[in-house]
Amino acid sequence: MAQVIETPLGMHVVLDLYDCDPKILDDIEKIEEILTKAAEVANATIIDKRFHKFSPQGVSGVVVVSESHIAIHTWPEHGYAAVDVYTCGDHTMPLKASEYIIKELKCKKPSVVKLDRGLLFKE
Amino acid sequence: MAQVIETPLGMHVVLDLYDCDPKILDDIEKIEEILTKAAEVANATIIDKRFHKFSPQGVSGVVVVSESHIAIHTWPEHGYAAVDVYTCGDHTMPLKASEYIIKELKCKKPSVVKLDRGLLFKE
Repeated sequence: MAQVIETPLGMHVVLDLYDCDPKILDDIEKIEEILTKAAEVANATIIDKRFHKFSPQGVSGVVVVSESHIAIHTWPEHGYAAVDVYTCGDHTMPLKASEYIIKELKCKKPSVVKLDRGLLFKE
Repeated sequence: MAQVIETPLGMHVVLDLYDCDPKILDDIEKIEEILTKAAEVANATIIDKRFHKFSPQGVSGVVVVSESHIAIHTWPEHGYAAVDVYTCGDHTMPLKASEYIIKELKCKKPSVVKLDRGLLFKE
């Protein structure tokens, strides 16, 4: 009984970004600008976005796109950001958006892992 | 030069949930109820939440918590849901919340992967 895996429903890029610019990581307006632009670079359609600034430091943000979501959580005190770029559909380019985010955060030590999510088997 | 890894900043549970109840996956109110309750089970503090219903089917939702986020994207036509339970801090229980979500979606084939994110090295 041979089974062929179809194209995954989604591609999820898990980014652990070390040695980023701490000033950028604590700038909620800049972070929102970067994630919004990243959604465009991914060729995704934004349907909602939410950003929060924490005290004394740190920013969290989620951009909900028709094709899933892009999320960020930052720890300026560690120069670290956790980013998820998760999109569905052949028209999206999550790795291109990931590259853009890495560049914009001035990250010197990125860890990039791509997960294929929603692997269905043909009957 | 021995280095000791500290506790990770965050725990991210990646859930690929196959063979769920399609009716629940397409019910935006039920999905919101489950994710909201899951945040409580994780002992996380909700600061925002957004849910969207797609046409002809499917639901996306994000619960932003002080400790990161819980997100879901559903494909009722495949009985599949992609869920991320990502929390920070010793007080949170993302696996307990994951177990709750699996049960509530009546998932018969869960894939559960836990990622430790933000592993810092002591100098």
